[in-house]
Formats: sequence, C-alpha cells, structure tokens
Amino acid sequence: MKGKFIVIEGLEGAGKTTARDTVVAALNANGIQNIVFTREPGGTPLAEKLRELVKQGVEGELLTDKAEVLMMYASRIQLIDNVIKPALGRGSWVVGDRHDLSSQAYQGGGRGIDNKLMTTLRDTVLGDFYPDLTLYLDLPPEIGLQRARQRGELDRIEKESLSFFERTRARYLELAASDSSIITIDASQPLELVTADIRQAMKQWLESNK
Amino acid sequence: MKGKFIVIEGLEGAGKTTARDTVVAALNANGIQNIVFTREPGGTPLAEKLRELVKQGVEGELLTDKAEVLMMYASRIQLIDNVIKPALGRGSWVVGDRHDLSSQAYQGGGRGIDNKLMTTLRDTVLGDFYPDLTLYLDLPPEIGLQRARQRGELDRIEKESLSFFERTRARYLELAASDSSIITIDASQPLELVTADIRQAMKQWLESNK
Repeated sequence: MKGKFIVIEGLEGAGKTTARDTVVAALNANGIQNIVFTREPGGTPLAEKLRELVKQGVEGELLTDKAEVLMMYASRIQLIDNVIKPALGRGSWVVGDRHDLSSQAYQGGGRGIDNKLMTTLRDTVLGDFYPDLTLYLDLPPEIGLQRARQRGELDRIEKESLSFFERTRARYLELAASDSSIITIDASQPLELVTADIRQAMKQWLESNK
Repeated sequence: MKGKFIVIEGLEGAGKTTARDTVVAALNANGIQNIVFTREPGGTPLAEKLRELVKQGVEGELLTDKAEVLMMYASRIQLIDNVIKPALGRGSWVVGDRHDLSSQAYQGGGRGIDNKLMTTLRDTVLGDFYPDLTLYLDLPPEIGLQRARQRGELDRIEKESLSFFERTRARYLELAASDSSIITIDASQPLELVTADIRQAMKQWLESNK
C-alpha cells in the first residue's frame, strides 16, 4: 500500500495527541511502520520560526489577521515541499497534527478572512495537494478550552474569545459535511468511546483503501 | 497638503538611497518636514524578522518561491497597517524604500509566480491601498549588480542569476508603462543627471498635486 497523508484536526483540547496514538496503532496493526509525524504550523526549521511568530506574536505589535494567514501558508508550503511530499515519495506514511483545514476553520471561519483570499491561497499555494484522510475531532469549544487551560499557559490564538472558537467549529463542521475525505469524530464522548470511534473509522478506511 | 506615500523602486544598485535624499530635499524645499521612512520587506519588529528570514533563508532548508512571496506580503500588511497608514493619518509623509511593485517585479517577474496569486495577494491583502507616487530607477541589471557587489556581501536574493534580474526588470518596465503613478528614471546615466531627473520629476509632481 502506497504511503498516504492522514491529518488529525480539531479545536484546542479536542484530544489530537491521543487520537494520533490510536491512528498509529491502527496503521501498525496493518503492517505500516514507516510513519513521519508533522505538526502545523511548523515542521521545518523555517516553518517553526513562523510558528513561534504566529503563536507568540511580537511584543508591542499588532499581528494582523492577513499576516497571520499568509504566515500559516508560508509555513505549510515549506512543510509540504520539504517534508511531506518527499516522505510520501519515499513510500512513508505521514500523520499530521493539523493541516489546511485548520486555516480554513481558524483564519477563514474564526477570523472571518475573505473567502476569495482563502480559496486562492488553498488552490494556488497548495495546488492539488490534499490529505488522503482527515479525522476531525469535534467538540464544543468550552470543553476543549477548559482542557487546554488545565494543560498550562495559552498562546496568542488560544486566548481568543469563545465566539472565535464557535465560528471556527462551525466552519470545521461545514467543511467536514461537504468533503467525504473528512471523518467527524464526536470528541465530547468519554475517551474510550472516542478511541473506539477512531479505531473503527481507521479500520473501515484502511479496508476500503486496500 | 495632505501627507502622501512616495515609493522608490529599482534593482539592487540602482541608487535608491541617493534618490531618497533627492526626494527628501525636494519635499523639504516645499515646506514638507514631517517625513517617515520605511523599507520593505521590514519596517516593523515582526516584518524585520520576516525580512531576515527571506533575505538570509534558513541554513539547509530550501525557501520555496511561494513561501517567499507570502512572507513578503505578511511583512507588507504589517507595515501598512501598523506604520504607513497611521503616519499618513497623522498628516506625515511617508517615503518608502520598495513597496508592492518590488513583489510584482521580483516574485511575479523574476520568480515567475502565478499571476492569479500575485493579483489576489495585491487586491485582497492590500485592498485599495496604493502609493501616491513611485519613482522607478531603471538600469540594466549587470550595472546594478556590479555596484551591489562592490558594496559587499550579497544576500540570498541578490545572488540570483542575471536572467532572474532581467525578468525582474522587464516586469518593472511593463508595470511602469501601464501605471501613470509610476515615473521611470534612467538610472544608468551619470549620477548628477539621475539626480536632476528626480528633482525635475518631483517638482512637476508636487506642482500638479498642490
């Protein structure tokens, strides 16, 4: 089976790290051992510098919504061209913590960035590169934020208002509903049920992609 | 007279710094003292960090053309929103060392970035914000590069091939020909003639904008 790109998406505190372990276990159980992990924004030296700038901002300077989305795409194309495509080309699998759907949801939905800009960035910067499968962990933002807060200090984006995350979630749900490569997992359930759902989704998807 | 935004453009070694002094002298002679200077990419703390990344790159990582243009626009919108527009709003004049025309010429012309992306970035990121006057210092790239080399170490972009700068110059000339707010100055002439041309251009422009 040729290497594929699987992305895990969701709001802060949705359980992306646990989900990743479940995905990896499912891949391993199918004899897939050669897996590259990515996170966005970031994942290359330059992209990690951009991650730091968008996550922390610069003291005393307003980071505009437009600069934020442009830096997200700069980070993403560095990661795709320098890490993801070469890994897939070598036959590895890639499991990503966030990808383009995050920009569509956070910058497009949350920040309300112009649709024309979002669409052109997606189509012109990324071209025909899409994940093979996206698992979107859905939960109400108040639950996720509470979990994220318990983990410690929130970054610049995590400090946004609840309504920002509600707009982000709404965009996630809207995009997931219209794209058959995105599977929505109810992440508000108890952890063992979330894990069971991911396991089941992976099993079916691996079966149908054999 | 309300503050205006004047941009000086041209290839490396075209004489932008000397031209700036001539522009400032012309403004001062017209009683305009309140002038803010900008340079691009850069000009805010965040934009300067982006400048460093695009100018020097990151050791061992290929900087993609798309990431480069996205970082240029991230830098530009930070500068416009946080420096240029506030300065103009206070009644200051702004004299810029490079602005959007550089991206159109270097990334659009030199790198050959997709026109749709260039146009959407220009229109959607910058909106209806345009310089009031651009002085484009035109000269054959081999002359400019020789001057730039004499000044010392070349950066990542200055190390590009001659054909890159020829494509960049061609795009500069093409855009200057179709935009009446851009005045082309023959920068291959002896310095005193270049200065006389800039002085004359400024005089006429200031007269017609009184």
